[in-house]
Amino acid sequence: MAALVSMNDTIAAIATPVGQGAVGIVRLSGAGAIAVADAVFSSKRGKPLSAARTFSLCYGWIVRDKEVFERAGRTPQAMPELIVDEVVVSLMRSPHSYTREDVVEINSHGGPRVLSVILELLLAKGARLAIPGEFTRRAFLNGRLDLAQAEAVLDIIQAKSELALKTSLTQLSGELSGRIKGLRRRMLDVLADIEARLDFSDEELGGVPDDALSVLRTTLQALRSLLEGSFCGRIVREGLKVVIYGRPNVGKSSLLNALLRTDRAIVTAIAGTTRDTIEECVSIRGLAVCFVDTAGILEAHDEIERLALERTRKAIDACDLLLFVFDGSAPLGREDEALLSQVNPLKKMIGVINKSDLPARVDASRLRGLFGVRPLVHVSALEREGIKQLEDEIFGAVFHDPGLLSADVLVSNVRHIEILKNSAASLERSIDSLQKGLSPEFGAADLRRAVDGLGELTGEVFREDVLDVIFSKFCIGK
Amino acid sequence: MAALVSMNDTIAAIATPVGQGAVGIVRLSGAGAIAVADAVFSSKRGKPLSAARTFSLCYGWIVRDKEVFERAGRTPQAMPELIVDEVVVSLMRSPHSYTREDVVEINSHGGPRVLSVILELLLAKGARLAIPGEFTRRAFLNGRLDLAQAEAVLDIIQAKSELALKTSLTQLSGELSGRIKGLRRRMLDVLADIEARLDFSDEELGGVPDDALSVLRTTLQALRSLLEGSFCGRIVREGLKVVIYGRPNVGKSSLLNALLRTDRAIVTAIAGTTRDTIEECVSIRGLAVCFVDTAGILEAHDEIERLALERTRKAIDACDLLLFVFDGSAPLGREDEALLSQVNPLKKMIGVINKSDLPARVDASRLRGLFGVRPLVHVSALEREGIKQLEDEIFGAVFHDPGLLSADVLVSNVRHIEILKNSAASLERSIDSLQKGLSPEFGAADLRRAVDGLGELTGEVFREDVLDVIFSKFCIGK
Repeated sequence: MAALVSMNDTIAAIATPVGQGAVGIVRLSGAGAIAVADAVFSSKRGKPLSAARTFSLCYGWIVRDKEVFERAGRTPQAMPELIVDEVVVSLMRSPHSYTREDVVEINSHGGPRVLSVILELLLAKGARLAIPGEFTRRAFLNGRLDLAQAEAVLDIIQAKSELALKTSLTQLSGELSGRIKGLRRRMLDVLADIEARLDFSDEELGGVPDDALSVLRTTLQALRSLLEGSFCGRIVREGLKVVIYGRPNVGKSSLLNALLRTDRAIVTAIAGTTRDTIEECVSIRGLAVCFVDTAGILEAHDEIERLALERTRKAIDACDLLLFVFDGSAPLGREDEALLSQVNPLKKMIGVINKSDLPARVDASRLRGLFGVRPLVHVSALEREGIKQLEDEIFGAVFHDPGLLSADVLVSNVRHIEILKNSAASLERSIDSLQKGLSPEFGAADLRRAVDGLGELTGEVFREDVLDVIFSKFCIGK
Repeated sequence: MAALVSMNDTIAAIATPVGQGAVGIVRLSGAGAIAVADAVFSSKRGKPLSAARTFSLCYGWIVRDKEVFERAGRTPQAMPELIVDEVVVSLMRSPHSYTREDVVEINSHGGPRVLSVILELLLAKGARLAIPGEFTRRAFLNGRLDLAQAEAVLDIIQAKSELALKTSLTQLSGELSGRIKGLRRRMLDVLADIEARLDFSDEELGGVPDDALSVLRTTLQALRSLLEGSFCGRIVREGLKVVIYGRPNVGKSSLLNALLRTDRAIVTAIAGTTRDTIEECVSIRGLAVCFVDTAGILEAHDEIERLALERTRKAIDACDLLLFVFDGSAPLGREDEALLSQVNPLKKMIGVINKSDLPARVDASRLRGLFGVRPLVHVSALEREGIKQLEDEIFGAVFHDPGLLSADVLVSNVRHIEILKNSAASLERSIDSLQKGLSPEFGAADLRRAVDGLGELTGEVFREDVLDVIFSKFCIGK
């Protein structure tokens, strides 16, 4: 992108979501933002934007021909055909703005047609259409946000739950970046030390000092503990995916309803009602939990069932947890056991014995044997009993330490997790070779890799193509 | 609504369209707007909104517990868990605001989750959720906009074309209201005169003076000329609906593509490809023109064809103009004539003789006979020839005077058209009875009806239930 798009020109884009809303905003950023806006904006008081103070609003009109409009007395009645919309324009001068450049936002009545006409006028006056995420990219390149903070902006917009929002806001505040920068600085100090000794290797300074190794070990520990929380971080960000599984008519759809506390799925007493997978998300203790109700069939008898079976298998593969449902009022059947035997033994799973409102006929000790250490919970989906305990078990089964969910800093971004994993591995190799007394050059090379990796997380080190990937996920106007 | 909802409290709503956008706005209006916003907003500089000047912006954070947050030093790093989002808040003090009340707009990073949390916090601090259109309703009740202007706000948001936008902006500028108010005032003067004479009827003031009658006649003429333009107004607002009709394989889909200048519809040489109706809108000379391609079948042979036939009939009933397409390279067939005979003879229609790129075999004089005074145009949809002429004919066939499309004032709103029709009818009755020398009481009663009608158009006279209907069409937050 660097070669194609200049960061020095003035960019413009519609910043509000597509659709008919009460307010629509067109946003400008760059050295020419005020001049471009002034070319199409006529303020009621006759004062140009260039004369307005920063952090102020101006009321007026976006006009097709400002000169003619102003000559006619600057009243909408005199020249209605020149007016595009009645607007309030806000001005934030560099460096105190989202991008650290001059930023102008035109708040119009909204409506897709008005917004595109305003945008077209701005482009005609010299602005360039912004590419996705370009405003935030400029905020990063101008040093207002580091890369992890810029990524947090997108996560805030897409937050699925309270916890996800909190994690992203913490990341936006610079908390994660601060920790990473601190760890990186400690490694850099050690690296500088080792490299200095390498330069004087003839004089035999005595290899690597013990305190340097101990700093690296503490740093590795810190990286590992961030990685440990990243499992929670990912689930907080994306939501917990739970599949409800079991043979037909054990009450899977009723259980879904009980967990959702609504009546979303169609519940009937006829076996096989649920042909399609139904996914519904609900916030449990601030976490987005998405339940997938599946077709509990063993073999496909027709094309529709074959598709349903395939969807079920995909859902099970992708989920974080399986709720395997049994009918507690019926004996354990061949179908129950056959379905159970198909489940990947590494999958996290809870057994749910439903219909506890009816006389128990299921073989509980056989079930206990089949489930081993995995939890078994009795519920009545119909009477909504045992649901609270099931929720506890869901949290317990997925999170070794549910307290991690409210950790100060949670790494949730896949890019960050990858970087942390690679940096930790490089650091581990570096420590290993340093303490084995191998030539310090090996240890230094691995340490350098770890340092550079962390630099990419915060953007202290960055490549344009990585920026392209990161910001292409943003919407235009952000 | 008047009984249910107070106009004196402070209202809040999300003002940007639903979805993930770069900017999301929550809007407050009312005497408590600043205090409510201040209860959840902590500015970076520590200055409360109540101390900020009007038309200014403040940067800071929306926080869950302002007191704790401020005690902790007002930095996001110190208390990230209290922050809902980083925001810029704009303040417009009464009376210079959209509603003429104090208005606060909170510009956040966007994203549905953030916006709902902010809204919930504001509601918890004493704001009430706004009903649809309530901000604009307040603008009307507080005298900033009259009713026709308030309705123009909605039309701007929904504008389908340049011309529609222009018409709505003219209406927002008060141009239509000004004319209507002027006409109403003239009628009111005459009414006052007549009623004064009625009070002194014993003294025989001599009925109604001639100049009063002449004023009413001029007024009636003005109302009629507004109504004359309302046909254009409605089409400008809603777009012109044109159905493309004719037997299979005459090139209807190709014609649609030629008119749209794209390749939207699937065009093949197999008869009956178009089973469903395809509707596509395009801007021709600033007017939204929506073309509907239809299944050109005479009789239904199966359920799918029966549905297609029904859809076609509905489309023809609802359209403003029919383009009846013939294959100029084939003789006129039984099917062509049978389809043509089914068309309502009052429907506006143009005959389109397609495939002018092939040798002509159609019986042109027979066609001319069938079409009478209606236009016949030769085109080649494939070569895109004759399309410009067809567009001219479309405008000519629909509009007696296409110049009306760019009239100063176009009445486009169905409510306004109804009011104008009724007022014109009442005025006509009034003139009639006055000039016949009937007791002036009759003329006065009809004149009063005409005056009240026009008052309802601008909102000088209004009923709460009419306001409910008008503003319920707005989105929440407008």
